[in-house]
Amino acid sequence: MDWRLRETVQRAVGRDCFFDGEAECLLYSYDSTARKAMPDAVVRAKDADQIASLLRLATRHGIPVTPRGGGSGATGGSVPVDGGIVLVMSDMNRIVSLDMDNLIACAEPGVITGDFHKEVESRGLFYPPDPASSAFCTLGGNLAECAGGPRAVKYGVTRDYVLGLEAVLPTGEKIRTGVETAKGVVGYDLTRLIVGSEGTLAVITSMTLRLLPLPESVRTLTVVFDRMDQAAKTVSEIIRKGLIPRTIEYMDQAAIVCAATRLEGLPVDAGAMLIIEVDGRETETLAMAEDVAGLCRSMGARQVRVALSAEEAAGIWAARKAISPALFRYGPDKINEDIVVPRSKIPEVVQKIQELKEKTRLTMVSFGHAGDGNIHFNIMLDKKDAKALKRANWAVEELFRYTLSIGGTLSGEHGVGLSKQAYFNMEIGPAEKALMLRLKHAFDPAGILNPHKIF
Amino acid sequence: MDWRLRETVQRAVGRDCFFDGEAECLLYSYDSTARKAMPDAVVRAKDADQIASLLRLATRHGIPVTPRGGGSGATGGSVPVDGGIVLVMSDMNRIVSLDMDNLIACAEPGVITGDFHKEVESRGLFYPPDPASSAFCTLGGNLAECAGGPRAVKYGVTRDYVLGLEAVLPTGEKIRTGVETAKGVVGYDLTRLIVGSEGTLAVITSMTLRLLPLPESVRTLTVVFDRMDQAAKTVSEIIRKGLIPRTIEYMDQAAIVCAATRLEGLPVDAGAMLIIEVDGRETETLAMAEDVAGLCRSMGARQVRVALSAEEAAGIWAARKAISPALFRYGPDKINEDIVVPRSKIPEVVQKIQELKEKTRLTMVSFGHAGDGNIHFNIMLDKKDAKALKRANWAVEELFRYTLSIGGTLSGEHGVGLSKQAYFNMEIGPAEKALMLRLKHAFDPAGILNPHKIF
Repeated sequence: MDWRLRETVQRAVGRDCFFDGEAECLLYSYDSTARKAMPDAVVRAKDADQIASLLRLATRHGIPVTPRGGGSGATGGSVPVDGGIVLVMSDMNRIVSLDMDNLIACAEPGVITGDFHKEVESRGLFYPPDPASSAFCTLGGNLAECAGGPRAVKYGVTRDYVLGLEAVLPTGEKIRTGVETAKGVVGYDLTRLIVGSEGTLAVITSMTLRLLPLPESVRTLTVVFDRMDQAAKTVSEIIRKGLIPRTIEYMDQAAIVCAATRLEGLPVDAGAMLIIEVDGRETETLAMAEDVAGLCRSMGARQVRVALSAEEAAGIWAARKAISPALFRYGPDKINEDIVVPRSKIPEVVQKIQELKEKTRLTMVSFGHAGDGNIHFNIMLDKKDAKALKRANWAVEELFRYTLSIGGTLSGEHGVGLSKQAYFNMEIGPAEKALMLRLKHAFDPAGILNPHKIF
Repeated sequence: MDWRLRETVQRAVGRDCFFDGEAECLLYSYDSTARKAMPDAVVRAKDADQIASLLRLATRHGIPVTPRGGGSGATGGSVPVDGGIVLVMSDMNRIVSLDMDNLIACAEPGVITGDFHKEVESRGLFYPPDPASSAFCTLGGNLAECAGGPRAVKYGVTRDYVLGLEAVLPTGEKIRTGVETAKGVVGYDLTRLIVGSEGTLAVITSMTLRLLPLPESVRTLTVVFDRMDQAAKTVSEIIRKGLIPRTIEYMDQAAIVCAATRLEGLPVDAGAMLIIEVDGRETETLAMAEDVAGLCRSMGARQVRVALSAEEAAGIWAARKAISPALFRYGPDKINEDIVVPRSKIPEVVQKIQELKEKTRLTMVSFGHAGDGNIHFNIMLDKKDAKALKRANWAVEELFRYTLSIGGTLSGEHGVGLSKQAYFNMEIGPAEKALMLRLKHAFDPAGILNPHKIF
């Protein structure tokens, strides 16, 4: 950006919202992947009008704009690879309204997801999407990526809780999409097109979210197996039996070791562990916990434990959330994928991962949302070891190919961003891709919004 | 179509699938609105390749193509207003697969919704969307309109059960969208953009649907009130208390009279009636039925009855579904709208309808999905009576204006089609409309697919 353009942008967004010092630029140059790229400037979003002014200028002058929530994305979605401006949404963080009568919330995109959970739960309401990064990710980022989390088994993903949006198009028009009611079918579904579009179609400035009543009761079970395949088969069997817990998480042995850094007493010698959560009315929850426990035992679980208190359950979840950061005990670099397969195919994928591990002699850790067939597959390595990196990339491609061959998809909640672009064409055909690019053009003719992402 | 073009189309789709006799054209000239328009020809869809051939030709020669499911649409969506070809999807009616392990079905668009319900329920599975026309509407039509139905209160609408599609673009490319897994976020959400697009973006040729386990137990309650406002307040109170029945239907007094044509013993003197259904595990269902019954009594219900058998419940639903056809006892013509308001605003809308009734001295009947705030509002009249028609149109516009002013939407499940076009701009602003038209163009550059609908 030359000085004249910088002046114009500064005037448009307000001097107090514009930063181009090295420290600020560095601060917003990366996300939770290892990718990094320096922006030319940082703009702190204030309101929809300011964003509209910025985007109008950006379209006119061809300035790349990369919106950014908590920066916790797992595929580089908020990394400004093309320079330009990072649009930081964190200051637009008001919960505008909570409508107790209609179970609807209106919030700005910068609200931290975990803060939102606390606020609605304190009023007896429930917002199910709960990505592991909820302590620092934002609702806006969750919408952009269509985040999921453990509770998706029963409750679905972010998409299922968005009723309507206010957003700014890359050309600067402010739009409203969707409804503030339980149903609505007037015109095309712009809401769900923007949700999951990884910040490439519009900048969300406000969202109308659907809430549920907070379940009366929750029971958390931990189930330990000697072997991973037993756990995998148990997950299939639970669903096949028509029991739908709200959560079925699994950890392999290496993941249990990571979780044990946070919680004492975990069975670090076990082949696999499941965390299963059931909820509903108190009587229903108890009956379901018993059914699930019985089923797990009949499938060969060596230990089934129902948490005795909310504190004990919280400890289990803290350990689960500790896995990702603790992975680095196995190596300085992480390759992190989130494939999804039909639930019944989990045993086969687990077998496939075992084979890849043996063939590549790399450290692989897998855990994730087994109830959805959503597997977080990690390879821990030193990327400076070129041979190891080559074997790792081969393993990822092999796993992707296998995933697609059994009816799966390459990403359940992380999106494509930068990390999965090389594999995008394995899943999305040329006609579909061409159509998506035409849609992108319909929103963003100058191609300024989060460029070089997804495609 | 001149004879040469007719020949070309015939060759492309197969002679046995092409019809241009007056009888066939007449048969597919209307839907459940009173609108009618003669197509030039009818093509019976056979498979995706045949549809692709037809659409390629249609784009090249500018032939309008109107896809059609069961013809039960309520806004003229399948009426070929521009002539051209009606593409009848009824023969593509196979349930291709039912995956019991992953609770997923694959079906062609011509499957009758009610047949699909029977098939999945016979295997202990559950497909919640249940439009009142389920005995003759098709899954394809349900997807095109994003159909709802009574069970949406707890289970959501058609959109929430579509995982992926196979479809043909107006330009003839065959595409696959979405996934066959519980989650998936690779690329833009084409699936949900096509769902609810009223057959204007693509022709669906196959769909992957999410199923649930069939609930163990259902209880059906009928609740009678002296006055409509009591019923309306009760609906709000049920939701506010965090009780989420799967269904809360309501009927006003005129609707009860219609339902009584099918079921003896209905309280034709009552001001309003609710049909409430709860489901889940047996113990949960009983407890919830008791809670709901208690709440209704405390809100002044004069009678609360829990159906004693599945047959009794089926009788109640048959009566509910008989309302629409029985409306014609009040007049030869029907104006039928399906507004949605925030649930807590139902009492106000009921009051507004009462005022409109008094002002216009027209027969108005309202019933519908109170649990969603989705009100089916009918004016019965003789459209040849120009003065009555003028008053009716005034009342509709007044109601629409009021609906929008309290945060509602003009359609919950019927779509815009032809009937609501005049009011589209009341809800959708110019920037949003322009964007939708750009999306339409990205799918259908020649504008041949279901032209003159929605916009």
